[in-house]
Amino acid sequence: MNFEYFTPTKVVFGRGAEEQTGALVKEQGGHKVLVHYGGGSVVRSGLLDVICRSLDAAGLSYVLLGGVVPNPRLSKVREGIRLCQEENVDFLLAVGGGSVIDSTKAIGYGLANEGDVWDFYDRKRKAAGCAPLGAVLTIAAAGSEMSDSSVITNEDGWIKRGYSSNYCRCRFAVMDPELTYTLPDYQTQSGCVDIMMHTMERYFNLSDNMELTDGISEALIRTVMRNARILKQNPSDYNARAEVMWASSLSHNGLTGCGTGGGDWASHQIEHELGGMFDVAHGAGLAAIWGSWARYVYREHPERFARFAEQIFGLKEDGSVEALALAGIEKMEDFYRSVGMPTNLKELGINPTEAQIQEMAEKCSFFGRRTVGVMKKLTAADVEEIYRMARG
Amino acid sequence: MNFEYFTPTKVVFGRGAEEQTGALVKEQGGHKVLVHYGGGSVVRSGLLDVICRSLDAAGLSYVLLGGVVPNPRLSKVREGIRLCQEENVDFLLAVGGGSVIDSTKAIGYGLANEGDVWDFYDRKRKAAGCAPLGAVLTIAAAGSEMSDSSVITNEDGWIKRGYSSNYCRCRFAVMDPELTYTLPDYQTQSGCVDIMMHTMERYFNLSDNMELTDGISEALIRTVMRNARILKQNPSDYNARAEVMWASSLSHNGLTGCGTGGGDWASHQIEHELGGMFDVAHGAGLAAIWGSWARYVYREHPERFARFAEQIFGLKEDGSVEALALAGIEKMEDFYRSVGMPTNLKELGINPTEAQIQEMAEKCSFFGRRTVGVMKKLTAADVEEIYRMARG
Repeated sequence: MNFEYFTPTKVVFGRGAEEQTGALVKEQGGHKVLVHYGGGSVVRSGLLDVICRSLDAAGLSYVLLGGVVPNPRLSKVREGIRLCQEENVDFLLAVGGGSVIDSTKAIGYGLANEGDVWDFYDRKRKAAGCAPLGAVLTIAAAGSEMSDSSVITNEDGWIKRGYSSNYCRCRFAVMDPELTYTLPDYQTQSGCVDIMMHTMERYFNLSDNMELTDGISEALIRTVMRNARILKQNPSDYNARAEVMWASSLSHNGLTGCGTGGGDWASHQIEHELGGMFDVAHGAGLAAIWGSWARYVYREHPERFARFAEQIFGLKEDGSVEALALAGIEKMEDFYRSVGMPTNLKELGINPTEAQIQEMAEKCSFFGRRTVGVMKKLTAADVEEIYRMARG
Repeated sequence: MNFEYFTPTKVVFGRGAEEQTGALVKEQGGHKVLVHYGGGSVVRSGLLDVICRSLDAAGLSYVLLGGVVPNPRLSKVREGIRLCQEENVDFLLAVGGGSVIDSTKAIGYGLANEGDVWDFYDRKRKAAGCAPLGAVLTIAAAGSEMSDSSVITNEDGWIKRGYSSNYCRCRFAVMDPELTYTLPDYQTQSGCVDIMMHTMERYFNLSDNMELTDGISEALIRTVMRNARILKQNPSDYNARAEVMWASSLSHNGLTGCGTGGGDWASHQIEHELGGMFDVAHGAGLAAIWGSWARYVYREHPERFARFAEQIFGLKEDGSVEALALAGIEKMEDFYRSVGMPTNLKELGINPTEAQIQEMAEKCSFFGRRTVGVMKKLTAADVEEIYRMARG
């Protein structure tokens, strides 16, 4: 499979890396910076002060905008675009996790293009650019610090949509594993699921992958699982935080997709509707859906699931390829439970009605305009069935 | 270990990728292109015609310069600099393997900086920039298409030196595995050794590496070994050529060094003197030296060599860690021999005199100004001893 690989983001990784933020913005030619963040934790931890001092030291001026929420919202993006236009901002700095970075990318699209920024997410037209941005990462999960994607929720109909292009790649990403020490366990584990899933979505497909890509992907999944268990016991284990943080970037910067032809992504699409309607943690939502998705599609390419079972869990074939494939799916659910992640919607804490399931499936299929996934091209009816299987 | 990771090169990988060359140069803003290549194979294969047509189609003008040789020479670099200045070249296109790309980088340094380009390689001063360049890869080996390094031989004293900076990273790299079908077996296998060694140099160090980096490195080494064996039997196996080609880039773009603190690089430094004095194939030279280097240093961190033995060859400890470490070194030499690579200087086809060994060791230590390696900081006397051990 032919592929393109483009990861221009300059990564500065390690203890105290955030102190280089001002110098990095200056290197990129920024003068007036939007410092964009989420809740109060960035303020309380003192990180915002460190960042602002670093910008001061580099002789840069800036304006602050907080209040980005998980499953970040279009109205907040529009507020950011207006603020940047009023203040003549020329560089965007995201301080936070995927929600903050994704919102910052959306602001960047809004600044660099005429018209309504939602058009890009709604597939009405393509962006021709994005204002330059960088990130100081505080949550290892979404991989947005190196990825080409951005996911935003439109409150008008609670529609969650992603838009991807190379324009929105971060110019730099500052990653200090210590900044993730104070994350609650549920968010840490939810992040680990998201990281694993960014590689698993690429790993599960109908083609024969490159050996090198498979080997890298399997090493990454095993590493995240091992370190998720360590963080369950000791959230301040520096090495474990570092492994998970670096995995978050490599899992979604394109590396684990080289030669795969693009991956499946159905679990993500199916989860996006849960996130849009119920505001659940993205990674937890993925864990709750994945087993049902896997059981619904594994017969399309059981060898792929069997390899997964062998390489990730060390299982051996003892009977049929299908049995090995199923055993691997069960083992992954065991792992999810072992780190406190849900494996169905009940454990996720939601109980959608039949009408809500139909509505989510309709939205997921863009009201019949698309199928999702490549292992099996899922229609709205297939997606409905997966939601039902996942009820628990 | 803190680290920086910066791989801005846009990779276009797959069958027919070379047809995009003109569009890629244009995307980078080039107008007048130096098309830089080595011997006649690029002409005979028709690749040069394809490239020129692609540049024509993009409306770009260009000037040709061939004749770059393995262990590429400073005089040819100077010729390239003069030609580019006369012709007002604003983009450099390397069509070839590591020697051509490294020479092109050197030309880029010469164009973007005042004074003598050799100063950078001789550690006299640092470059402040490099003219923009791209590569169409025809040999999978050096990894120069994504790396920050360039190695040139100064005929005045036959001194081979490397210079590294982010300035010289290729803007794009075009990689069509089919372009490597016609490489002679010895060059193919020599390339595979070079690829493995770029990761092994980073893998062997005194610190505890990141699990994720180790896992990626081990997957890469295993993949290259498996596919080197396949190419020994069938040089036109597309998948094997693709695995090796992509590994060449990932092995030297920084990925396998994240969190390692920099790696050892003594084998490379020791081999560079062989290449400078005897003009041997770089990868074959590395294979001829590695076992002797490994036996000379493994006691400094036997656990690292033991892990290598376990993860690459599936060996188990049966006695001491040292015995396992040594068993791994022997297995690697077995592998080298199995693909026709030398494991000592005799098999490499050279028989340096005692005076030549002393001269190479002196040059390698910059006449006493540096030690090489981190596993053990090797002086000229240590390097001499390794050359002697490697005599065979």
